[in-house]
Amino acid sequence: MIAVIKPGTTDEQMEPLISWLEKQELRVHISKGEYQTVIGLIGDTSKVDLEMIQSLDIVESATRVSEPYKACSRTFHPEDTVIQVGENGPKIGGGHFAIIAGPCSVETPEQISYVAQRVKDGGAHLLRGGAFKPRTSPYDFQGHGQKGIEMLLTAKAATGLPIVTELMDIRNIPLFEDVDVIQIGARNTQNYDLLKEVGKMNKPVLLKRGLAGTLKELLMSAEYIMANGNENVILCERGIRTYESTYTRNTLDLSAVPVLKKLSHLPVIVDPSHATGHSDLVSSMALAAVAAGADGLMIEVHNDPKHAWSDGPQSITPDVFDDIASKIRKIREVIKGC
Amino acid sequence: MIAVIKPGTTDEQMEPLISWLEKQELRVHISKGEYQTVIGLIGDTSKVDLEMIQSLDIVESATRVSEPYKACSRTFHPEDTVIQVGENGPKIGGGHFAIIAGPCSVETPEQISYVAQRVKDGGAHLLRGGAFKPRTSPYDFQGHGQKGIEMLLTAKAATGLPIVTELMDIRNIPLFEDVDVIQIGARNTQNYDLLKEVGKMNKPVLLKRGLAGTLKELLMSAEYIMANGNENVILCERGIRTYESTYTRNTLDLSAVPVLKKLSHLPVIVDPSHATGHSDLVSSMALAAVAAGADGLMIEVHNDPKHAWSDGPQSITPDVFDDIASKIRKIREVIKGC
Amino acid sequence: MIAVIKPGTTDEQMEPLISWLEKQELRVHISKGEYQTVIGLIGDTSKVDLEMIQSLDIVESATRVSEPYKACSRTFHPEDTVIQVGENGPKIGGGHFAIIAGPCSVETPEQISYVAQRVKDGGAHLLRGGAFKPRTSPYDFQGHGQKGIEMLLTAKAATGLPIVTELMDIRNIPLFEDVDVIQIGARNTQNYDLLKEVGKMNKPVLLKRGLAGTLKELLMSAEYIMANGNENVILCERGIRTYESTYTRNTLDLSAVPVLKKLSHLPVIVDPSHATGHSDLVSSMALAAVAAGADGLMIEVHNDPKHAWSDGPQSITPDVFDDIASKIRKIREVIKGC
Amino acid sequence: MIAVIKPGTTDEQMEPLISWLEKQELRVHISKGEYQTVIGLIGDTSKVDLEMIQSLDIVESATRVSEPYKACSRTFHPEDTVIQVGENGPKIGGGHFAIIAGPCSVETPEQISYVAQRVKDGGAHLLRGGAFKPRTSPYDFQGHGQKGIEMLLTAKAATGLPIVTELMDIRNIPLFEDVDVIQIGARNTQNYDLLKEVGKMNKPVLLKRGLAGTLKELLMSAEYIMANGNENVILCERGIRTYESTYTRNTLDLSAVPVLKKLSHLPVIVDPSHATGHSDLVSSMALAAVAAGADGLMIEVHNDPKHAWSDGPQSITPDVFDDIASKIRKIREVIKGC
Repeated sequence: MIAVIKPGTTDEQMEPLISWLEKQELRVHISKGEYQTVIGLIGDTSKVDLEMIQSLDIVESATRVSEPYKACSRTFHPEDTVIQVGENGPKIGGGHFAIIAGPCSVETPEQISYVAQRVKDGGAHLLRGGAFKPRTSPYDFQGHGQKGIEMLLTAKAATGLPIVTELMDIRNIPLFEDVDVIQIGARNTQNYDLLKEVGKMNKPVLLKRGLAGTLKELLMSAEYIMANGNENVILCERGIRTYESTYTRNTLDLSAVPVLKKLSHLPVIVDPSHATGHSDLVSSMALAAVAAGADGLMIEVHNDPKHAWSDGPQSITPDVFDDIASKIRKIREVIKGC
Repeated sequence: MIAVIKPGTTDEQMEPLISWLEKQELRVHISKGEYQTVIGLIGDTSKVDLEMIQSLDIVESATRVSEPYKACSRTFHPEDTVIQVGENGPKIGGGHFAIIAGPCSVETPEQISYVAQRVKDGGAHLLRGGAFKPRTSPYDFQGHGQKGIEMLLTAKAATGLPIVTELMDIRNIPLFEDVDVIQIGARNTQNYDLLKEVGKMNKPVLLKRGLAGTLKELLMSAEYIMANGNENVILCERGIRTYESTYTRNTLDLSAVPVLKKLSHLPVIVDPSHATGHSDLVSSMALAAVAAGADGLMIEVHNDPKHAWSDGPQSITPDVFDDIASKIRKIREVIKGC
Repeated sequence: MIAVIKPGTTDEQMEPLISWLEKQELRVHISKGEYQTVIGLIGDTSKVDLEMIQSLDIVESATRVSEPYKACSRTFHPEDTVIQVGENGPKIGGGHFAIIAGPCSVETPEQISYVAQRVKDGGAHLLRGGAFKPRTSPYDFQGHGQKGIEMLLTAKAATGLPIVTELMDIRNIPLFEDVDVIQIGARNTQNYDLLKEVGKMNKPVLLKRGLAGTLKELLMSAEYIMANGNENVILCERGIRTYESTYTRNTLDLSAVPVLKKLSHLPVIVDPSHATGHSDLVSSMALAAVAAGADGLMIEVHNDPKHAWSDGPQSITPDVFDDIASKIRKIREVIKGC
Repeated sequence: MIAVIKPGTTDEQMEPLISWLEKQELRVHISKGEYQTVIGLIGDTSKVDLEMIQSLDIVESATRVSEPYKACSRTFHPEDTVIQVGENGPKIGGGHFAIIAGPCSVETPEQISYVAQRVKDGGAHLLRGGAFKPRTSPYDFQGHGQKGIEMLLTAKAATGLPIVTELMDIRNIPLFEDVDVIQIGARNTQNYDLLKEVGKMNKPVLLKRGLAGTLKELLMSAEYIMANGNENVILCERGIRTYESTYTRNTLDLSAVPVLKKLSHLPVIVDPSHATGHSDLVSSMALAAVAAGADGLMIEVHNDPKHAWSDGPQSITPDVFDDIASKIRKIREVIKGC
């Protein structure tokens, strides 16, 4: 941690700060410049409150030099984390690429089973489908809840695809016992009580970046889960909110992929469907995500997008999915060969 | 609702859509242009799924003409809502102005009692203080929880000030029985399960705008609370996330005040402390908010900001609070006289 | 300047950097921590290239501790700058408040003369009006050009109000000889060749913040003008581009007022018309700007907003202007008395 | 164009608007709903002022249904534009892919000639290099100007690579006679007088998206150039300003590629260097851009990035360029085969 002292501060005025810092078992280095004095703190500064230092009269600014996350940091864990879904299921990360596909909402047993079979045939590794849906309007379809999970489990039994579905309410955790991967949605990325609870579960968590979340916030939210014991976190870029919302719902931030992989050992996947909000943009953004180095994709596929109960405009058909999946494999080969 | 049909669409291609819409008990008006055909829907379109219409092959774009919120809309409720806190407590809205003041976190019984007395003397109408704190890092102070609420209640008993504190976890609702106003923080503005539950409580809810929330999303979240039975919602502008974060933590969006008051009958207050993140900006932004027509303010006041356990840099001292509060009264008089 | 050295860097690896820095007549302080080493540079670092330092293999990050602007910095010029318009015209800054009012575009001699008289009667100190208009579409009205300036000069002769109008093209500078204040619009805030030229003129420049400009960029653009010799720069906040563009054209960033006044000695004014884009929001935002401490306002007033050739929706009538101007005076009295 | 009439408006109140519109040779369709009346205009509405309609008392909102650009619109020009650089130079667009590479600034004759030869050997089709540099600070290196162009021409003569360099000031146009492609930088995307002038030149223009420009604004700026006679415009995505600026300089908006290609027939290229600001992100973002369907790339390459006079941190070495260029070719083959 570095603190820049205000011009004109005397040694006497600095003394109480210095001695307090030294009591925290930190070594203190003082650099006196012509115009400014800078204090550097050496040792474990994670318990020193940056804001407290910043609020001192004699301090002009203070900055933390090291990042505030640890469990998810690549510095302390240089190897890629490989996440194993279920006992014999797919792996994600460390060279293992996974495609998660399925409808936005689970609608009917026929719909989810049909889509599950089609995406499996197309090359998907996991099945997605919303049972509990976060909708902006209280008057919109809120998902089938428990029945939706049952429909997903039936589709899983038929196809063998492990399932991913969103958890919004701590009280519903018992319903997720047979779910393979817990999804935390963009509106709950900073619902810390929820993060703490999934941190106590022993199954992978797919953590979406917040609607306008920074990469650091995403990593800190992963840290909440990991600090509670669950190290199986998959990070998901799903587009961020910007001023450009005429032609795309969000702005897909693909540079998040190499940045997150540089900062953290956790796998990073991309959701081109929510990011763009338009089915005709899904293919190009899916391929771009693969070329950017993503460890997986989450794609919304619906048997009949025009009649989807939610997010129809961004859903692709199983036929289009087949096409995208085969292109993904080709790009993956180029990337791996690179 | 208005749907713009793609160029080249024939009457035969439009026919299924038209007849389906008419079955929904909507009147359909068709305007044929040289280049484009536009369909207007008249009647109760709230149950027509905009996304479904948008996803149709023959539709180029579709727009909802009326707003999707009702309970909070001024159209259906032209009079300002006046919120009564407790039985004999302060009123907010409809010409009643309320100042909510207190520390970011409840730290000790002495601290909260001292600040409570000071802000009461300065002219505050309600006491704020965080017992459960949403912190970006799992390693930061998370609040005293239940003990914090007890300290707030002691301060309330001593000063008579009703209390406002944040609820983050549905499981903690029983602890909030004697809290006067429930605060929903910016990270939980779209935690819909939480909104539904506070919608069942019969005490006012102070709902903060999301970190990067739109005004429409804020109103839709208020709608979640109101649709569940609780009509006592106070909207709170607290700064939004923008590219400008060097000199202020967030960008205070004061135009939100007149816009929200135009769209909704609910009272609108402003939190200049979280918006700016700097104590030396609180005074000017508090006065600006009053001049903009806000129904109240929420201001962080700490006895010793340099040693605050959280948000010290944005907290003002009781002395500064006294000064701001007296200026607020003067601006209020000018505004009312206007 | 502070440079954080990468972990594992040896003294030998640092040596060439250290000796090079010392050759630049800088004193170098090295703080070695357990995990990181930090180099502090003392002396005149304004000629050290931050990017070059950042690009070195052994450097993890580098930060400039002091701001990169000088002429406009309050550090080196603690007193407020007071700008004198013309010989006997109004003053702006240092306690002098100025209202600039008039139509978006100069349309006809009758229109500009009528509006000029009305805003003068209402209390305006300067007349605005666009002769050269930056329009997003090449097919929209681009302004009357030279004839527009002539119409402004006629209105100035009739009313005595000094005039403010926008310069977009260096080739047009000769036409601006009798203009009192040169306006640089938001789209040209970083048109550096234009800034250099107005830096050679000896009349005040009203510099608008860029469409999505940072405060630092605004100050650096002022620095371009001042470094070329013209110290009479008025900074203008006019709303920034954010994700919230449904209910307001831009987001008025009123905290820019106290921040700019803290960083710089230059006067700061606010344009609530362009910021909001809606005439019914102009009054509340104008008053809020005054309460925030602005040194002036720029308000679009049109005799007949419904038939304005540009920006009609955000223009107010002379009657509304009279009302706002009288409220402004009252708020000013409260602020000054504060 | 569609205008929504305010509730409660009588036929008598609407009559003047209707008759005025009909005089503009527009057909008017009126749809009366229970709550709202909607007016649709059919015919050539490009001359009807949207803002004027919006400002009418009886109008709640008005929207243009068709896009305001024409020359660059794919609707009126379904075939991809193929831009021919020079007489025998490379083509861009319509299946032709071009790599533009070179240093941020032209520094010395040796530097530009060396880099030119290296990027040519690596597979670049055009050479870039800044002679006139837009720098945020007036104290930073502003480019060699005319001498820089001469150095570029020497490198062109030696390698045969056509050159791309930025024009900022209309007065410098004569110096650009032998430049092959004129670059308009992000800070000048809405410098309309400059756009009009390059619209009169008969050489290709590489038009960068504004710092925080919308896609529609980019297309409208292209329209300025094309409306003045020059149809050879290359659009360039270079990252946009968002709240996320800790780990990347800008946020690369790759969905802009398929969106722009859907809306317009002009070629679209991507600049991953300015977008990310970090050399270690250039490779992944370059490949992602190719996978997204870009028609070309603009990449900063420097012989010695650590000592670059500008933008060193985002420049890659010639060796890294060779590697990226070979990967680009492989991805291109997959994409073309798709």
